[in-house]
Amino acid sequence: MNIVPIGYVRSTAEAMTDCREQESIIEILPEFEEGLYKIEEEKELVILYIFDRSEGLSLKVHPKGDPNVPLRGVFATRSPDRPNRIGMTTVTLLRREDRLLHVKGLDALDGSPVVDIKPLVRPDQRPISQK
Amino acid sequence: MNIVPIGYVRSTAEAMTDCREQESIIEILPEFEEGLYKIEEEKELVILYIFDRSEGLSLKVHPKGDPNVPLRGVFATRSPDRPNRIGMTTVTLLRREDRLLHVKGLDALDGSPVVDIKPLVRPDQRPISQK
Repeated sequence: MNIVPIGYVRSTAEAMTDCREQESIIEILPEFEEGLYKIEEEKELVILYIFDRSEGLSLKVHPKGDPNVPLRGVFATRSPDRPNRIGMTTVTLLRREDRLLHVKGLDALDGSPVVDIKPLVRPDQRPISQK
Repeated sequence: MNIVPIGYVRSTAEAMTDCREQESIIEILPEFEEGLYKIEEEKELVILYIFDRSEGLSLKVHPKGDPNVPLRGVFATRSPDRPNRIGMTTVTLLRREDRLLHVKGLDALDGSPVVDIKPLVRPDQRPISQK
């Protein structure tokens, strides 16, 4: 199955751990701009992006790359070295400026391809059985 | 960018609206089973899957397919007719049985390809600045 970038992360953070504190920009490609219609009504968004700097695949990993933390299956971690290198993060939408989304909390490096944006469904918006 | 199934949804629900209330199974392919190591320690998981029955792409959609609901950009909705047909749902892990994850709350149809599983990061586990 093929997936395509809908945009790219524009961030000045140098390491993943720096990204969460600061504002960054998601630049959507012109051909997908129409898909942002009314997105400014959303406060929190889920961003799916590609760990494009990930190398290799490990089915068992030390969480956070720390060899002192016991091994764990990759699906029980957020490691980037996964079968499909899709990263997921929840951001606060600060404002939209045409094709640019100014967001806070984006845990992705500059240049990362973005493949989807979805409104966050908060636990209190789910059907009662899921609460 | 190419993505591959890591497993498939096994569900007896007939329509999306039925799926959330009931248990379903995610069957992981044998070659990815090792990636489930210790996943039983997680209570809630995020499942990324493919809307494989989606047809076409609409950048503006009526949410929930209801023509009475005003149009909205696809990235401000959970519509399956998106540029990359990736669906996302949060489930409760009931138990693991080898390659089978018994889950509750999976909003995906039987046979949907699963492309990633991640532990849910709850808001109270995020850095303070994101709370």
